[in-house]
Amino acid sequence: MSGADAVKEDRLWQRHADMAKLGGTPRGGVNRQALSAEDAAARNQLAAWAKARDFDVFTDAIGNLFIQKSGTDPALAPVLSGSHMDSQPTGGRFDGMYGVLAAFEALEALDDAGVKTKRPVMAVAWTNEEGSRFQPGAMGSAVFAGACRLDDMLGQKDWKGIVLKDALAETLKAAPAPIRDGAPGFPVDSYIEAHIEQGPRLETAATTIGVVTAIQGSRRYIVEIDGEEAHAGTTPRAARKDAYAAATRIAAAMYEATADADDTLRFTIGRVDVSPGSPNTVPGKAVFTIDMRHPDNAVLAAHEAKLEAIVAAKAPPCPARIERVTNVPPTDFDPTVIGLVRDKAESLGLSHMDMPSGAGHDAMHIARLCPTGMIFVPCERGISHNEIENATPADLAAGTRVLVEVLEALANR
Amino acid sequence: MSGADAVKEDRLWQRHADMAKLGGTPRGGVNRQALSAEDAAARNQLAAWAKARDFDVFTDAIGNLFIQKSGTDPALAPVLSGSHMDSQPTGGRFDGMYGVLAAFEALEALDDAGVKTKRPVMAVAWTNEEGSRFQPGAMGSAVFAGACRLDDMLGQKDWKGIVLKDALAETLKAAPAPIRDGAPGFPVDSYIEAHIEQGPRLETAATTIGVVTAIQGSRRYIVEIDGEEAHAGTTPRAARKDAYAAATRIAAAMYEATADADDTLRFTIGRVDVSPGSPNTVPGKAVFTIDMRHPDNAVLAAHEAKLEAIVAAKAPPCPARIERVTNVPPTDFDPTVIGLVRDKAESLGLSHMDMPSGAGHDAMHIARLCPTGMIFVPCERGISHNEIENATPADLAAGTRVLVEVLEALANR
Repeated sequence: MSGADAVKEDRLWQRHADMAKLGGTPRGGVNRQALSAEDAAARNQLAAWAKARDFDVFTDAIGNLFIQKSGTDPALAPVLSGSHMDSQPTGGRFDGMYGVLAAFEALEALDDAGVKTKRPVMAVAWTNEEGSRFQPGAMGSAVFAGACRLDDMLGQKDWKGIVLKDALAETLKAAPAPIRDGAPGFPVDSYIEAHIEQGPRLETAATTIGVVTAIQGSRRYIVEIDGEEAHAGTTPRAARKDAYAAATRIAAAMYEATADADDTLRFTIGRVDVSPGSPNTVPGKAVFTIDMRHPDNAVLAAHEAKLEAIVAAKAPPCPARIERVTNVPPTDFDPTVIGLVRDKAESLGLSHMDMPSGAGHDAMHIARLCPTGMIFVPCERGISHNEIENATPADLAAGTRVLVEVLEALANR
Repeated sequence: MSGADAVKEDRLWQRHADMAKLGGTPRGGVNRQALSAEDAAARNQLAAWAKARDFDVFTDAIGNLFIQKSGTDPALAPVLSGSHMDSQPTGGRFDGMYGVLAAFEALEALDDAGVKTKRPVMAVAWTNEEGSRFQPGAMGSAVFAGACRLDDMLGQKDWKGIVLKDALAETLKAAPAPIRDGAPGFPVDSYIEAHIEQGPRLETAATTIGVVTAIQGSRRYIVEIDGEEAHAGTTPRAARKDAYAAATRIAAAMYEATADADDTLRFTIGRVDVSPGSPNTVPGKAVFTIDMRHPDNAVLAAHEAKLEAIVAAKAPPCPARIERVTNVPPTDFDPTVIGLVRDKAESLGLSHMDMPSGAGHDAMHIARLCPTGMIFVPCERGISHNEIENATPADLAAGTRVLVEVLEALANR
């Protein structure tokens, strides 16, 4: 029996149901924010399952939780797989949790099938991926990869003023695990993260496996336009400096400029503030946000240049400013890992397609350390960060079977 | 000496300065809201000036204040002129007050010049034109003309819960005047109201007298567009129902459709609400207001039809609704009165131009009763409803000279 054959769809589904009780909401979602009592309960549950298998369990100084199935050569760095167990305040059952439970199912399946690997295979639950309670998100993987300093993170406060260090101590007291000495981070051979897509592409294409090639880059802007307040009844068009008319010219041109033929560029105006906001006063100010994402940094740069040209051309007679507030470059995944995911999906007879990830993930940080990739499975109507988030037992199991095959291949390299 | 020759620029300017002390603000404007202690002080001041001339002073059940210079034929209905003395909370010295003081200056000038008219000539200060404390505005003239019921208005409350009836009683106690029995309203031969333009057209055209042909009609709409909230990073354009993208398509098309060659149509989007208002969430809802004004009701109707067609064409895939919240038809002024204003400006050697009024005025209601017109004079940069509102002594006097000539002509018909 292969590892993939040993994946048990029912067991995996039941574990999602068990975990959904920890922080479960009346509407069927979860509220299991980072370093809460619910997060501690999920850690205890995972550790209990691991201990029943005699897998090693340990944590690090930022609270990342690791579960190890030993390899045959103790000198080799482990192959790592996982995601996160914390949720949005009104989150779903699958976001993050699927990647952790798929990794754990992979360890169990390898164990059940009696598969020995050269390298250890490890599951991980990264601390605080969502960033809804403590900023920034993807914190545990960022500290592990050295992208954020541990001390800075320990000093972060939630909106009630609770310091992360205290919340972490509380969590580790409630969910104790041996702590690995020293700063977080240790040599890792490779990393692969399973996740629900959080978008509609797989479902729309009736495809089971997303072969994730990259996490797209994102840039965020604030466009601010100054007008002049004036009486809506008495001020001729020629005498107006209408901040919202200028904002509309800019927005209309940008929607047009970003309508790429292959529908890969993501362009969103999500927040719009017009003041004074009186129906019979010409707006004196308009401010809006732009969120722009693409897997190719050059495409983002080209559209930033378009934005600058459009604002310069369309804002007059109103002065306007563009502030770039974030610029996260794309993360390209490792060709070997990408190729393995594609090949294993193919050999398992699963439909698959290459795609970038629209959202950020812990894999973004770990890709700086070692060859990294991701596996997506469909989620219902692409809805995520929502209590009605849903996925099918069959798709979750299919993704896990691909994961087992990839982990086994990587662990025997 | 003619009545126009007897207009005293200095006296008129000084009276504006005297009135500006009643409710005067540190920034040089006035806060003299309807039926306040400041309003009562202005009433007392006007009545004191009138009594010094032996003009008759009386009020009516809604507090409109009348000052009469008798005519030679007591059987004839009076010619009426005036405006309002109440202000916005941060209003200027000239809005409304100019029309009252110009009318009073006209009475004095006729008196000083020894001009006798067949009909009485009356000045009026209408109650609560601004509507900033008690709704609706133009209340005194509306009750006088029968457009609003007296009892309904007496029951109106301000934001502190004070009932208008009580505020009016308080005001008339502080500024007593003989009360004319019965419901407000009596036969009037004709009405002419002087006012600052509250827009920039006269100043821009370096013209002194605006011959007001009409008060433009206004229609107000709320456009409401439903989208579907979605992740800005993961949702392809083809899968989005972006309420703000739809709003932008509609707004852009409407700005274009309303760009008339003669710059007469006033089109304003003043309030825009986009929700949930998160930079990385595709908007699930967009709501915006449209304020549209034109002197010709057919033009308004045609553009309402365009709005309907544009929303139907541009909103999809988002459902959208248009709600028309107000529809005030244009007020066309009387050709005889318009002609008199034009002719008298011409014979006084004053530059003049025909124009509609962009804002509403008390003349709107009185035009239902009798031949009516208005005279505009320039205000600095068109700024009104603002403490920095300004006008020149020469322009105010010029408008008053036209007013005197028109009143004399009407009163001798």
